[in-house]
Amino acid sequence: MFKKILIANRGEIALRVIRTCKEMGIKTVAVYSTVDAESLHVRFADEAVCIGPAPSNLSYLKISNIIAAAEITNADAIHPGYGFLSENAKFSKICAEHNIKFIGASPDMIDKMGDKATAKATMRAAGVPCVPGSEGILPSYEDAERIAVDMGFPVMLKATAGGGGKGMRAVWKKEDLRAAWDSARQEAAASFGNDGMYMEKLIEEPRHIEIQIVGDSSGKACHLSERDCSVQRRHQKLTEETPSPFMTDKLRKQMGEAAVKAAEYIKYEGAGTVEFLVDKHRNFYFMEMNTRIQVEHPITEQVIDYDLIREQILVAAGIPISGKNYFPQLHSIECRINAEDPYNNFRPSPGKITNLHAPGGHGVRIDTHVYSGYIIPPNYDSMIAKLITTAQTREEAINKMKRALDEFVIEGVKTTIPFHRQLMDEPDYVAGNYTTKFMETFKMKPVIEE
Amino acid sequence: MFKKILIANRGEIALRVIRTCKEMGIKTVAVYSTVDAESLHVRFADEAVCIGPAPSNLSYLKISNIIAAAEITNADAIHPGYGFLSENAKFSKICAEHNIKFIGASPDMIDKMGDKATAKATMRAAGVPCVPGSEGILPSYEDAERIAVDMGFPVMLKATAGGGGKGMRAVWKKEDLRAAWDSARQEAAASFGNDGMYMEKLIEEPRHIEIQIVGDSSGKACHLSERDCSVQRRHQKLTEETPSPFMTDKLRKQMGEAAVKAAEYIKYEGAGTVEFLVDKHRNFYFMEMNTRIQVEHPITEQVIDYDLIREQILVAAGIPISGKNYFPQLHSIECRINAEDPYNNFRPSPGKITNLHAPGGHGVRIDTHVYSGYIIPPNYDSMIAKLITTAQTREEAINKMKRALDEFVIEGVKTTIPFHRQLMDEPDYVAGNYTTKFMETFKMKPVIEE
Repeated sequence: MFKKILIANRGEIALRVIRTCKEMGIKTVAVYSTVDAESLHVRFADEAVCIGPAPSNLSYLKISNIIAAAEITNADAIHPGYGFLSENAKFSKICAEHNIKFIGASPDMIDKMGDKATAKATMRAAGVPCVPGSEGILPSYEDAERIAVDMGFPVMLKATAGGGGKGMRAVWKKEDLRAAWDSARQEAAASFGNDGMYMEKLIEEPRHIEIQIVGDSSGKACHLSERDCSVQRRHQKLTEETPSPFMTDKLRKQMGEAAVKAAEYIKYEGAGTVEFLVDKHRNFYFMEMNTRIQVEHPITEQVIDYDLIREQILVAAGIPISGKNYFPQLHSIECRINAEDPYNNFRPSPGKITNLHAPGGHGVRIDTHVYSGYIIPPNYDSMIAKLITTAQTREEAINKMKRALDEFVIEGVKTTIPFHRQLMDEPDYVAGNYTTKFMETFKMKPVIEE
Repeated sequence: MFKKILIANRGEIALRVIRTCKEMGIKTVAVYSTVDAESLHVRFADEAVCIGPAPSNLSYLKISNIIAAAEITNADAIHPGYGFLSENAKFSKICAEHNIKFIGASPDMIDKMGDKATAKATMRAAGVPCVPGSEGILPSYEDAERIAVDMGFPVMLKATAGGGGKGMRAVWKKEDLRAAWDSARQEAAASFGNDGMYMEKLIEEPRHIEIQIVGDSSGKACHLSERDCSVQRRHQKLTEETPSPFMTDKLRKQMGEAAVKAAEYIKYEGAGTVEFLVDKHRNFYFMEMNTRIQVEHPITEQVIDYDLIREQILVAAGIPISGKNYFPQLHSIECRINAEDPYNNFRPSPGKITNLHAPGGHGVRIDTHVYSGYIIPPNYDSMIAKLITTAQTREEAINKMKRALDEFVIEGVKTTIPFHRQLMDEPDYVAGNYTTKFMETFKMKPVIEE
């Protein structure tokens, strides 16, 4: 087993990994930028190394500084968390070259799944259902037009290096294709330095349902059921739940089998997530695979009593998985508490938390790196806490979330707590009747002064 | 179902009940003494009524004030929590007379189980194993001596109205019996206004293991397995766990069946706990029955995914229980965090909490009514929080407890956090090798300044 793990990340996920390492008796090294010196991940690690100033490219993305920190502290493994370098093939490769175990996917695997067109072609070869579309990158606009006409509109143009909605365009008729093609390519070039585009049939009223999988070095994989992440705003997930209210036993079995088939086909090692779009007829299509831990992993942990970070570490150390598929025994919901103003277009609200009181009690879990007096820097993602409730039924989990949100006090900055509190009362959400389009029509109700 | 429940208690248990009521859509009324105005149970209830000054006999024990608070707020039920009026037959009776449902035992049941000699006689009649001893109250010293000589020393003299170790004496030889008899009777008279004594064979190296039961109005009962509460100081529990490391499947089955037999014999309605002493040969003896929720109930909830407060409310509303016995699927430990100085004989340390940061993450639950800035009044029990960790195995639950205790920040008052942190490293505790005598030889290690 590893003696010391460096966590190449910040915020709640860095603390999340440190906690499991402590429980496993593994020493930890935190790295931090100058603005993160007071974060809990720095305080709770055994050692901490400052790796540069606030801009990520000078610290959390600066491979040389992170490798140097691992070498001076004698860390024998690196956990990358999510985001930053977690799906960076070069980083995975450099770790291996320095004889440091990267707790994540191999460079090959990251390359294979990181390029979306390649990923889709691989999955099609594995026999996993994919959204109909171009086979790989479109060589020219003429090819795009031909394929769109053949498939029929609406279609989606997508940047092959894309993420977060950048370089993505829905096109409803032929006349609009040219303009969408040009602007999406420009955006992709600016965002990712890669203007490669591919095309897919647009799935109307889709749900985003993903399957958690774990594979080991023997090539065996298992699945841990689904998470429904359809409540999204501009492709950013806001709240997730498991089981999906849209799920049936039959669909879970089909999607679970498809995800395991995908993982075993590519001999996937570690924890990963196979994301699917599910249409209203319960047809499901491979969307992408994330070769890292996901923000929303706790809801899976809650319903099957499983520590996913522990499993990542065990698999990285070469310990085989049980190979058993897990099915949810309970219902769990996660609300991402962001320092954003839901009454002002979710505008980020960095600054000092003057008072914080977290809810507690039966069925409530909180993952956070912040506290009373913490100053949220403006440089990073605005998520400051994950609030997770778990109960026997979906209705009970929602009721528990309402009372936990009511108890949650965060003063000094605006947060998305009022958004989640309203969401938990929205008839369509309560009925489980939502798609990725849900937020397009959602509006905050005005605050009524008492 | 009840429309509004008044919680006749304070602190974490009042908040605990309010949380479940909120989740069930039931309105809540908090009552509070003047020094508790800033407690979270007051803030999170729908309504709050001040019922008097700090001394309990003028507020939390003052039946007339509590009934008046229920009447003015139109509450249709009262949850008494633990302690205070939770096992007061008169209060249970007065509630019934005012047409307010008492969420607890009937006056008859409280009388039957509250008097320890009567309780033991009842259990013996039900066929539940009891510690050999006097049948009921000892009429005279001569009877005490005769029974002690017949049974053989050592014996325990116990006040029939006793609790918290008061009016209780261990006697190892005949010559010491007279003095023990006199002093125990005096203490019992002073403490409880009742000097009735009974006698039991002294169980050497006993473990305190209790079985959680739930019964309904049809007379059916089930058990929810055990809690090991052997780590006690002066008869006050400090930490509890389930399953007991001393338990075997066979013993759990026997003790569970005995507890269900006891509950069904007396037609017990609601949640209750049958406390047993277990000797080193795994013989078990009925000790007493608590006709209320216990402080340590969360560890049972954690290992069987069950809300015991909800169950109390459902049973009180006449809804039948499933009747299924529950067995632990996980391991859970509770540490009672008291405002006491473990380096100074656990002396109470009331005062202002200047900073509080609670641990979080996977498998961590916290039940507390305090927060940064809260002033702990000197008038009540010194427990300020319950920290509960849950994992697949006992070893993992202990490791989780260690890291959670390390994260827990409470400044401004002394707490028992350092005691629990040391306990989790004690070889005998880690080996599960402890009895109710454990704390008699326990010593805090001196703090080493770094």
